[in-house]
Amino acid sequence: MLKLNRSFASAFVAEDELVSYMDERADVLARCQAGEDRYADSLGWLSVDEWASDAILDRTCALAEQIRSMADTFVVIGVGGSNNGSRSVQAALAPEGARLVWAGNTLSAWELNRVLDELEGHDVVIDCIAKNFETLEPGSSFRLLRQYLVERYGREEAARRIVCTGTIGSPLEDLCRAEGYTFVPFATNVGGRYTALTEVHLLPMAVAGVDIRALVAGARTMERLLRTAPAGENSAFAYASARNMLWDRGYRVELLSFFEPRFRWFSKWWEQLFAESEGKDGRGIFPAAAECSEELHSLGQFVQDGTHILFETFLDVLEPGAGDSLVLGGTDVADAFGYLDGKDFWDINKASFTATREAHAGMLPCFTLELDRLDEEHMGMLFYWFAFACYASGELLGVNPFDQPGVEAYKRLMFDALGK
Amino acid sequence: MLKLNRSFASAFVAEDELVSYMDERADVLARCQAGEDRYADSLGWLSVDEWASDAILDRTCALAEQIRSMADTFVVIGVGGSNNGSRSVQAALAPEGARLVWAGNTLSAWELNRVLDELEGHDVVIDCIAKNFETLEPGSSFRLLRQYLVERYGREEAARRIVCTGTIGSPLEDLCRAEGYTFVPFATNVGGRYTALTEVHLLPMAVAGVDIRALVAGARTMERLLRTAPAGENSAFAYASARNMLWDRGYRVELLSFFEPRFRWFSKWWEQLFAESEGKDGRGIFPAAAECSEELHSLGQFVQDGTHILFETFLDVLEPGAGDSLVLGGTDVADAFGYLDGKDFWDINKASFTATREAHAGMLPCFTLELDRLDEEHMGMLFYWFAFACYASGELLGVNPFDQPGVEAYKRLMFDALGK
Repeated sequence: MLKLNRSFASAFVAEDELVSYMDERADVLARCQAGEDRYADSLGWLSVDEWASDAILDRTCALAEQIRSMADTFVVIGVGGSNNGSRSVQAALAPEGARLVWAGNTLSAWELNRVLDELEGHDVVIDCIAKNFETLEPGSSFRLLRQYLVERYGREEAARRIVCTGTIGSPLEDLCRAEGYTFVPFATNVGGRYTALTEVHLLPMAVAGVDIRALVAGARTMERLLRTAPAGENSAFAYASARNMLWDRGYRVELLSFFEPRFRWFSKWWEQLFAESEGKDGRGIFPAAAECSEELHSLGQFVQDGTHILFETFLDVLEPGAGDSLVLGGTDVADAFGYLDGKDFWDINKASFTATREAHAGMLPCFTLELDRLDEEHMGMLFYWFAFACYASGELLGVNPFDQPGVEAYKRLMFDALGK
Repeated sequence: MLKLNRSFASAFVAEDELVSYMDERADVLARCQAGEDRYADSLGWLSVDEWASDAILDRTCALAEQIRSMADTFVVIGVGGSNNGSRSVQAALAPEGARLVWAGNTLSAWELNRVLDELEGHDVVIDCIAKNFETLEPGSSFRLLRQYLVERYGREEAARRIVCTGTIGSPLEDLCRAEGYTFVPFATNVGGRYTALTEVHLLPMAVAGVDIRALVAGARTMERLLRTAPAGENSAFAYASARNMLWDRGYRVELLSFFEPRFRWFSKWWEQLFAESEGKDGRGIFPAAAECSEELHSLGQFVQDGTHILFETFLDVLEPGAGDSLVLGGTDVADAFGYLDGKDFWDINKASFTATREAHAGMLPCFTLELDRLDEEHMGMLFYWFAFACYASGELLGVNPFDQPGVEAYKRLMFDALGK
C-alpha cells in the first residue's frame, strides 16, 4: 500500500489547517472523483479499465510475447509522455525480459549514433509511439530506424519488426495498414503525460518482462481508494491540498527526494506530470528531484540552509526486496568506519534517510510517500496516485491540468526554421 | 574559446545597467582575481598550476599508464566534489581508455550490488578519494571493494590495485603507508567542489583516456583571461553580475539547458558548485538542469508559461566534432516528415535549440555560453570559467562561496543513529 506521512511537515502545514482546507474544498475532490465533463477528452486515465482492461492486458501480453520471440532488443521511439512511464518501471524494477533501448527522445546526432551502435549484434523490433505523428523527435528517429531495419532485414522482414502506437484514424495508422506494420491504438482521450497505464507504456513494460497485470492491479486498487475516500481520508487530495497551501505561502520549488537511485526515471515522469500540468498562466510549483544520498552532497546545503522556497517529498520504500541487502563485513585495516561492522547497507541507507528527513524538517516542510515494497503493484499505485493528485492539485491552483499551450511557441519557430 | 552571449537576456538585464553594475563592483572582481586572504585555505584552484603543474601532469599520466597496464576497469570511490568532475568529462567526451565505474556515491545496497556485478570478468583497480576520510559513502564503499579485491586477488596483489587520494598527513595516508597502497595527495587548500582541475579528477580522467594536458591547457588559458580582464570585458564576472541582478529582481531558479545530453553529468557538477557555494543564510539561486530536446517535453511548458522565477543558461557547442553528424535519408513511405529529407541531425538539433532560445527569451532571461568545440580544452575552460564565476557570484551575493555549514545537521543525526 501507499501512505502519505505528513508528520514531518506539520510544523509548516498544521494538521487542523490542512483538514479545514480540505473540508472547504470537498467539492473539488468530488468533481475529480467523478471526472468533469469539461475535461472529457482528457480523462480516459481516470477509470483504469478504460485503457487497461483485462482484454487489453491479454492482447498486450500476447503481442509482447510475440515480440520477444523475434527480438532481444526493443527500441522505444517516444518522448515525454511516450517514454517516461515505461522507462520509470524498467529502471525501478530491472525486469529480465528484452532489453529496452530509448530513441525518439533526442535530436542529437551523437546520441542517435550511440543508439545505432547499441543495436549491433542484437535482434531488433522497434515501436514508434506518436499520438499525432508530428512531433519531431519520434518522427525523425522512426525514419532513421525504419531505414536501418530495411537495410538490415529487407523490406518485408523489417515490416514484421515494426510496431506503431498511434491514434486510431491517424496517418500513422494509415501507414501501418499500407506497410503491414503492427498497429497499437494510442488512448484517444488521454494526454501524453497521463498515459502510464495504457498500451503506450504497458507494451514496452511487458516486452521488458514487467508483470503488467500486477502493475495494473495496483493502479485499480488505488483508483478504488482515491475515487471513494472523502476529503479528510484521501491521501492524494491531502497532498494536493498541502502543496497548494504551500504555494499560497510562497513556496515555489518541490524536491522529489529518494534514497534508491533507481527512482531516477520515475522522478522524470513526475517532473513532466507536474511541470506541464501546473506550469502555466504564470503559476505552478517548479518540480525538481534529488537522487540521494549522492545529491545530499550537492543540493543538501541549499535544501538545509538556502532560499526558503523549497519543500520536499520523499519516496520511501519500507521493506527490502531481492537485491536490497548487502552486509558490510569487518576489516583488518585501520580506518574510522568500525561502527559499520556487520551492518547491512539497507539499514545504513535508512539511517541516512531518516537523519536527512529529520534535519530537513527543521527547516522546510517534508512529506513522505511510503511504499510497502518496490514492485509492479506499487509502481502502478504510484502512477495512479500522482496522476489523481495532479488533477486535484491543478484544480486547486486554478489551471487546466490537461493542456500545454506553452510549448507551441518554440515549435512554430522550429518548424519555420526547418522549412516545414 | 568560450564566449558568453547575453543578447537573449538584454530585454531583462539591459546592457547599460549590467555595465554600470559591474563598474560599481570592480573592486569585487579585483579581489577575486587576486584571491582574498580570508579564503586562503580554499583558493588553491585559483592558480591552475598550483595543483596541475606540468610536473603533476607528468606524474599523473605515468600513474594512469601503470593502472591501465593492470586494469580495464577503474573504480572511482568518491562522492560530490570527488566524482562530479571526472564523470562530467568521461560522459562528455567518451574517451577510449579504461572503463570508469562509479562507487562511493551511494548507500543503496541495490546500487552497490550492481557495481559488484559490473566488475565480474574485468581487471580492476580502485581509487578511494576522501579528503577527510570520514564521509560515509566513500568510506563504506572502500571497505566493501577492498574486501572484494582481497578475496579475488589475495592481499598482496590487492594492495597493488588500490589507490587512495587523501590529504597528506591524514589517516588515509597512514593506511596507505601501512598497507602499501598507492597514495595520491588531495589538494589541501581546495574544497571538494572546486577540485576538477586537481589530481582528484585528473587521475580518473587520465585512466579513462582523456588528454589531461589539453584539458589543463584550456583551464590555464581561461585563468589568464579571467584574472586579468577588467570588469567590462570579463565574461565570468558579467555572468556573476547578471545572475545577482536577477536575484535582486526575484528570480530564484537557474536552469542550465543543453541540447547535447552528454552534458548531463557536467550539469550535476555545476549544480553542486552553485548549490553548495550560494545556498546558505537563507539565500541563493536554486540550480536545475534541462536535458534537451527531451526535457522540452517535460519542463518546457513551465519554462515558457509557468511561475516567473526562472532564468536560463544554455550551453551551446558551435562546431560539430567526430560523431556529431548523421544525415537523415529520404524514405519511400508516406509520413509528414518530408521536410527533413537529407538534413543532418546536427542541423536539426541546432534548429530546435535556436527556436527554443528565441521562444524562451520572450518570457525569461536567456544566457548562452558558447563553446567552439566539445573537447578536452573546452572542458578545462568550462571548469575554470564556472569556478571563477561562482567565487565572484558568491561575493556579490554576500555569502562565503567556500563553506557548506548546512550539511552538518543531518550528518550529526546520521552518525548518532549509526552509533559512531
